[in-house]
Amino acid sequence: MNKDKVIKNDGVGKVRSQVFTFDSLKLENAEKLGPVSLAYETYGSLNKDKSNAILIAHALSGDAHAAGVHEGEDNPGWWDEFIGPGRAFDTDRYFVICSNVLGGCKGSTGPASLNPKTSKPFALEFPLITINDIVAAQKRLIDHLGIEKLLSVVGGSMGGQQVLAWLVKYPQSLCSAVPIATTIKHSPQQIAFNEVGRQAIMADAHWKSGNYYEGLPPSKGLAVARMIGHITYMSDKSMAEKFGRAKKGIGEPFKFTADFEVEGYLRYRGDNFVKRFDANSYLYITKAMDNFDASGGKRFEEVLRGTKAKVLVISFKSDWLYPAYQSKEIVKACKLAGVETTYCEIDSTYGHDAFLLEVAEESHLIRHFLKKVFYAYEVTGEYGA
Amino acid sequence: MNKDKVIKNDGVGKVRSQVFTFDSLKLENAEKLGPVSLAYETYGSLNKDKSNAILIAHALSGDAHAAGVHEGEDNPGWWDEFIGPGRAFDTDRYFVICSNVLGGCKGSTGPASLNPKTSKPFALEFPLITINDIVAAQKRLIDHLGIEKLLSVVGGSMGGQQVLAWLVKYPQSLCSAVPIATTIKHSPQQIAFNEVGRQAIMADAHWKSGNYYEGLPPSKGLAVARMIGHITYMSDKSMAEKFGRAKKGIGEPFKFTADFEVEGYLRYRGDNFVKRFDANSYLYITKAMDNFDASGGKRFEEVLRGTKAKVLVISFKSDWLYPAYQSKEIVKACKLAGVETTYCEIDSTYGHDAFLLEVAEESHLIRHFLKKVFYAYEVTGEYGA
Repeated sequence: MNKDKVIKNDGVGKVRSQVFTFDSLKLENAEKLGPVSLAYETYGSLNKDKSNAILIAHALSGDAHAAGVHEGEDNPGWWDEFIGPGRAFDTDRYFVICSNVLGGCKGSTGPASLNPKTSKPFALEFPLITINDIVAAQKRLIDHLGIEKLLSVVGGSMGGQQVLAWLVKYPQSLCSAVPIATTIKHSPQQIAFNEVGRQAIMADAHWKSGNYYEGLPPSKGLAVARMIGHITYMSDKSMAEKFGRAKKGIGEPFKFTADFEVEGYLRYRGDNFVKRFDANSYLYITKAMDNFDASGGKRFEEVLRGTKAKVLVISFKSDWLYPAYQSKEIVKACKLAGVETTYCEIDSTYGHDAFLLEVAEESHLIRHFLKKVFYAYEVTGEYGA
Repeated sequence: MNKDKVIKNDGVGKVRSQVFTFDSLKLENAEKLGPVSLAYETYGSLNKDKSNAILIAHALSGDAHAAGVHEGEDNPGWWDEFIGPGRAFDTDRYFVICSNVLGGCKGSTGPASLNPKTSKPFALEFPLITINDIVAAQKRLIDHLGIEKLLSVVGGSMGGQQVLAWLVKYPQSLCSAVPIATTIKHSPQQIAFNEVGRQAIMADAHWKSGNYYEGLPPSKGLAVARMIGHITYMSDKSMAEKFGRAKKGIGEPFKFTADFEVEGYLRYRGDNFVKRFDANSYLYITKAMDNFDASGGKRFEEVLRGTKAKVLVISFKSDWLYPAYQSKEIVKACKLAGVETTYCEIDSTYGHDAFLLEVAEESHLIRHFLKKVFYAYEVTGEYGA
């Protein structure tokens, strides 16, 4: 083994994904989907009382691999800095679970999976899933792990939408919830950015109405969708700090090369993404995000009423994709519903990406919130509802 | 003639475009381009002293048709509400000129024009033009019209970039300048949005490295580019007010139809745009915008020093594509250079589109500014330098 390739990871170290498969799931639109597989990972150990389990919900392009390192790979999980001994999600204390969403392409059942009826990939035969369906599948996994009540459900962005769905759908099954940089429902601007990403994919001649699994995938369209995403994940300021107007040196003779560093960065991120993500999953998952309304058409405080879970809402000052006013709407509804709620707007310049990058301040908030919730249980023998 | 089709236009009424062609233009990159044609329109009459001429510079997707109605067409020019008897650009008083930019596709020489060397469309053989080249071509038109000194040069967005280029390159040839919702140079975020638009065009299989003029154009890619643009032209708030989360009724069975009104709007605007715009022009013009730096690598106040023109800078509160801080940078540099400068940030919710939509307040500002500049000339017999 090449010495340079030895991975140092002071967190949870080597990890591997598992798969949980169950017979079928009744979807929100009444269709039945099955069998359903969910790829998941766990870190730390479930305690005797099964009272220390935390579910982490990932964002649009995330997966079950939240922490540690896979055998033979270099990069740690997407939230590695938050998960491990002594970290915000302290694996000496908590049992942390993360699963790839239903509709995803990283081990869970999605449009690229084989349709048992045809033995071909579902493609657009895959049903139009919702955030509530994603969460219903997670609930099955949690049941399977023998956990009656989660200490917390935590997630940023689309992960935060799942947190809100848990709060509404399974209020008895969680002691606390941490929605980060998220919203009760998408604004037209958020829908519009997702829609343009979808249009870019569907404009790719290789997309073929979703039936590309035997040929070339719509890589160019997906890369454009990802580039649009990346712009919205950063702030004007963080881009200026990262790139300025620096040029990449002499361009090729061709005129529309990436002259500016920011152009090269976007192309690189776009090209990288298509190696690891399925375009149809991108369509389904963004549509689930756009259709999501945690309040189900009512006022959010109405559907929250009676919830005993404690809530920590986090937003970021420079996040213009999921602006702080949307987090404040969550806080307001929680307060109106009598839910014990803490709110913090972190003063970050990173834009929406801050939920992945503001490790110190975010860890501090989460660590203390979890300790308080967990301690309440340890002392009183009960927590939440 | 169908009575319903009679066009009512209280402005300049029926108008037609003209074309001015000149032998050749030496470009900023030292290449020679020629012959060069510019499509242009004029409204009102040039006075005896030739002291009442105003040049209006259009934005990315604009053209020479700024006001009035073309024979057989329904829609007035893109800034019609600002131009006409009694309007901000009062055609009873001023002689207004607007020309399609070099590199454009609405009558001026651009990548779709025939390359005299090959008798085929230039496509990517078209030279990489700059905002300074665009302005140099306009200067030739102004010379041709016998105008030594413009009363004003006015424009929003990319039009504002041209205004700044005029200020720097031809300070002796204008009495005043009105840069609206613009910037000295693009930020990485502005470059990034343009770059993703370019990537969407180049990802279209029909683009064929720009050689699509004998076949189908890259309509889907161009539509995606336009959709991205439209999102950036509106504000979060104006989108919420215009669309909310209203749905378009029952969608077609196909799953990725435009469910939300905002999706339908974007698709409509994208599809409409491709009927009237050339994808290669979109590439060239956005690249010219990204490469533009009015200060030419120096500090902007240095290149402005000595300018006698009066300047009115206008920005809009909800414009996040060309945020007010960029207009304030223009104002600061003008003040440091001793240029007489007025600044107004209009309290609009329309986002970047406000420069087209905030007719009342913007007209008021422009009308009074122009009167003041023109009056100074009428009384003193000299103005500006």
